[in-house]
Amino acid sequence: MSNRIFGHISDYPEGSWFESRVALSQAGLHRPRIAGISGTESEGADSIVLSGGYEDDEDLGDEIVYTGHGGRDQDTGKQVASQKLTRGNLALAKSKLQGLPVRVIRGSTHKSDNSPPVGYRYDGLYRVEDYWQERGRAGYYIWRYRLVKIIENQTPSSPIATDNPATYLKPNRQEITVLRIVRDTKQARQIKVLYDYHCQVCGIRLQSNAGPYVEAAHIRPLGIPHNGSDSINNLICLCPNHHVLFDYGTFSIADDLSLLGIKGALTRVENHEINIDNLRYHREHYFSIQGEAN
Amino acid sequence: MSNRIFGHISDYPEGSWFESRVALSQAGLHRPRIAGISGTESEGADSIVLSGGYEDDEDLGDEIVYTGHGGRDQDTGKQVASQKLTRGNLALAKSKLQGLPVRVIRGSTHKSDNSPPVGYRYDGLYRVEDYWQERGRAGYYIWRYRLVKIIENQTPSSPIATDNPATYLKPNRQEITVLRIVRDTKQARQIKVLYDYHCQVCGIRLQSNAGPYVEAAHIRPLGIPHNGSDSINNLICLCPNHHVLFDYGTFSIADDLSLLGIKGALTRVENHEINIDNLRYHREHYFSIQGEAN
Repeated sequence: MSNRIFGHISDYPEGSWFESRVALSQAGLHRPRIAGISGTESEGADSIVLSGGYEDDEDLGDEIVYTGHGGRDQDTGKQVASQKLTRGNLALAKSKLQGLPVRVIRGSTHKSDNSPPVGYRYDGLYRVEDYWQERGRAGYYIWRYRLVKIIENQTPSSPIATDNPATYLKPNRQEITVLRIVRDTKQARQIKVLYDYHCQVCGIRLQSNAGPYVEAAHIRPLGIPHNGSDSINNLICLCPNHHVLFDYGTFSIADDLSLLGIKGALTRVENHEINIDNLRYHREHYFSIQGEAN
Repeated sequence: MSNRIFGHISDYPEGSWFESRVALSQAGLHRPRIAGISGTESEGADSIVLSGGYEDDEDLGDEIVYTGHGGRDQDTGKQVASQKLTRGNLALAKSKLQGLPVRVIRGSTHKSDNSPPVGYRYDGLYRVEDYWQERGRAGYYIWRYRLVKIIENQTPSSPIATDNPATYLKPNRQEITVLRIVRDTKQARQIKVLYDYHCQVCGIRLQSNAGPYVEAAHIRPLGIPHNGSDSINNLICLCPNHHVLFDYGTFSIADDLSLLGIKGALTRVENHEINIDNLRYHREHYFSIQGEAN
């Protein structure tokens, strides 16, 4: 086992500043001295450095859209091939799969109001909420990641207050993180009723003592950079298992509602209009086979 | 459709104070003038008032353990029968199932450092993270709820900053909430490897482009008041569907690892010791049939 640490590093709280990549590496916050992603395919990624590599990166502070590595010409920096879901890119995907926290470090060369004026600053832990492929400006595929800041004052694992505030404020936070979040809205509740809590893929209806349970899945995701809408024509009703498989792109949906990647077709009730553009968006960005073939 | 509002009520931000239950009702924050739970079995619960009814209630501020209603003698206040998962109790369970936010109001008679000195104070939105049954001091079953404060500065639904800060800070927050959270720890990752990402109930192994996906379920939950441990002998490896069904107590596990409520038996590898006391805890507090029969 490697001694890779996922989470905070002792003695370097959020906000710690470093003069150089060498200093950052010596502190253990981000060990590689050149690569933007620290991690391995098997363990996941423990940290990233934002230093302005990709023009499409977005940074709202608590939400970041980050681009994977590879496929660029070493001299010109231009994209000359598609990125693969391997090495650091796969490590970051693994961090989502395993629910691992990723340390985010911003460098002064990162084009954002959130960057430090000089050097590098450790800006705390983020979770990889989502990843997908995208056709970049040069026509090649790139892998992109949506990172969301982990709010750490919530639900300490050791909730009994102690006399030592330091202990109370740092309850195992190297280990605990959030793996899977499903948001619910009025529209989500509507679609559940429309399908009477049955999964549109397998037809299952999970029972609890308070009633049936099902999840509403957004076809084109909400939030940057997808900006899918929270409306019925962008929602389908799925059991948790098929929701996971849909979000990871293990299967997708053709325009005629037949399923891609798994057998069968999506069940649809008459008064549920699905926006075909949203299905196309999901196929293009999430469905696994397509991008890998490039 | 009723005009019940889930979420904040306009003009009454968190911290708003009220002299009486009548004033609270007129503001629309908690409409019933006597009942502690506002809501219906079909819609869910939109608000609760903490006013010190049950001696076992716990209040850590951001986490609250709340007791349902019913089964008490009107004169003496003593528990004389088991509580049922009906009316307000079922409404609160429904709020978990549907991921609805619950307004929490603390009254001065609520025994906690967090109570206002006089009157009633609106203390913001909580989600129902969990509910279960428990044998109370008088030997009758009561229903209990774990409520966790919703942190609202995270992931606004309309993430593009506008010139109007008021718009930016209140993005549909009446509608958006968190439905399902799965925490991941080192121990959780260990058990996934132990079962090679197969569900111990149905054997399924969900595939993604970054590897297999499975969830680690705590048998006896973490946190107050259960205080289950985050150790391998308190964990099982489940697909998301069976995780949901286990957490809601649709099925449980006997000491010999046969399943209760559904057919089959839990698969177990030799080097995975399961603490029998944790299985008993789950059966007693979560397995549906038992408490309902009382």
